[in-house]
Amino acid sequence: MRRFSLNQATTKHWPLPDVVAGCVAAGVPGIGLWREPVAEYGLARTATLVRDAGLAVTTLCRGGFFTADDWREENLRAIEEAATLGAPVLVLVCGGLPEGSRDIDGARARVADAIADLAPHAEAAGVRLAIEPLHPMFTADRCVIATLGQALDIAERFDPDVVGVVVDAYHVWWDDTVYAQIVRAGERIASFQVCDWITPLPEGVLLGRALPGDGCIELRRLREAVDRAGYTGPIEVEVFHADVWARPGEQVLAASIDGYLREVV
Amino acid sequence: MRRFSLNQATTKHWPLPDVVAGCVAAGVPGIGLWREPVAEYGLARTATLVRDAGLAVTTLCRGGFFTADDWREENLRAIEEAATLGAPVLVLVCGGLPEGSRDIDGARARVADAIADLAPHAEAAGVRLAIEPLHPMFTADRCVIATLGQALDIAERFDPDVVGVVVDAYHVWWDDTVYAQIVRAGERIASFQVCDWITPLPEGVLLGRALPGDGCIELRRLREAVDRAGYTGPIEVEVFHADVWARPGEQVLAASIDGYLREVV
Repeated sequence: MRRFSLNQATTKHWPLPDVVAGCVAAGVPGIGLWREPVAEYGLARTATLVRDAGLAVTTLCRGGFFTADDWREENLRAIEEAATLGAPVLVLVCGGLPEGSRDIDGARARVADAIADLAPHAEAAGVRLAIEPLHPMFTADRCVIATLGQALDIAERFDPDVVGVVVDAYHVWWDDTVYAQIVRAGERIASFQVCDWITPLPEGVLLGRALPGDGCIELRRLREAVDRAGYTGPIEVEVFHADVWARPGEQVLAASIDGYLREVV
Repeated sequence: MRRFSLNQATTKHWPLPDVVAGCVAAGVPGIGLWREPVAEYGLARTATLVRDAGLAVTTLCRGGFFTADDWREENLRAIEEAATLGAPVLVLVCGGLPEGSRDIDGARARVADAIADLAPHAEAAGVRLAIEPLHPMFTADRCVIATLGQALDIAERFDPDVVGVVVDAYHVWWDDTVYAQIVRAGERIASFQVCDWITPLPEGVLLGRALPGDGCIELRRLREAVDRAGYTGPIEVEVFHADVWARPGEQVLAASIDGYLREVV
């Protein structure tokens, strides 16, 4: 369990104090937090809550969405929040195409420019920016960075301690170059996240993720690959699914731990 | 209009004689056929119908699905049907992971083995096999070949006149390597298909395709790229969407031609 981390989105409707208590009770050492529920509970209050519980904050989700008008102030704020929470990593979901645009090269160039702008601020705050390639079904509306190779093409322009990448099994498993790209990523792997792929995908495709072991992703193979590449950090279970969210938090946490122990480590 | 071809799936509920008459009336020179409606109307009868109308059959959809128990006899039958119809190209949708399997490397190896098995039969029949990479959202359940690069890795083992690739804008537009892979593909491009990407994707994601021009794909840029790579063949409009299928066939054909003329050529 040393590397296990519960991404808060997996138990979306579990109130933050209950998530923290549940993690402590289950022997979970780490938690991945999201900005919106943190803001709702209060930033300083959350920082105190998790610190007093002895939980490590493994990531803060998420910065990015560089197509928004206020992307710069929002991302600077997210960096500060990560620093306050003691989260070493701010996950970046980089945004899709601007409304009505087809200019994918332009959108990708803006992602690189935005990260160049933010990197010094992240470095000063002691927070690592982690570019997350999202599955290509999200290219249009969530993230024009669709592969680990593409994420690395950008990350490699920066100090690896300042800009890394997220390897999320759900987003990369289909890619026949992913194992080569994990080798290439090496010390740039800032976060490793797991869940599973099931079909049919639901409308909107966002909430189609299953608990580890319930789908067709070679999770252990991916975990072994990131380990061989030198990654020794936390492994976050991050599941989005209406059926999972409808279950009691304790049950979902227990199922996450079970899937992690059976299928990942 | 010289290169325009209506893929039959775009007007799914239009009876075959009406599709053919509609194409002739609209000055459409080519049609892409599907095995199921052809079988329903009768293979020989369809061949006569389209030949008498002076329509070129641009592709037959589809062979593949190499995970099925009867994949070999089904694909041999599809090759014969293509020959009977005068279709120069049989589109291969290669199949996903076998039920309950996570062995994606194994599934991909079986695709290559199956094509090696079928290639001599296709060559003898004068039919070109065209490997179609499908968008990665279909990797698990429809096609483990997810990129043009992967399709070419297999196709390149064979004579280009016998095994080529399909470039379908919907499946490849998100890929930052697609323009390099189109150059690499060159004379292996056996078919170019267009439709458009819109969000949100519907449940099951199969029927999410829009008419050309209604979404965010750089269709003209892709068309220019396949042209520069040496492709001079038909351009099929292939749209799957419940709303499109609910409209009268004539209307959909007119809208397909309009989108093609405005956004593709």
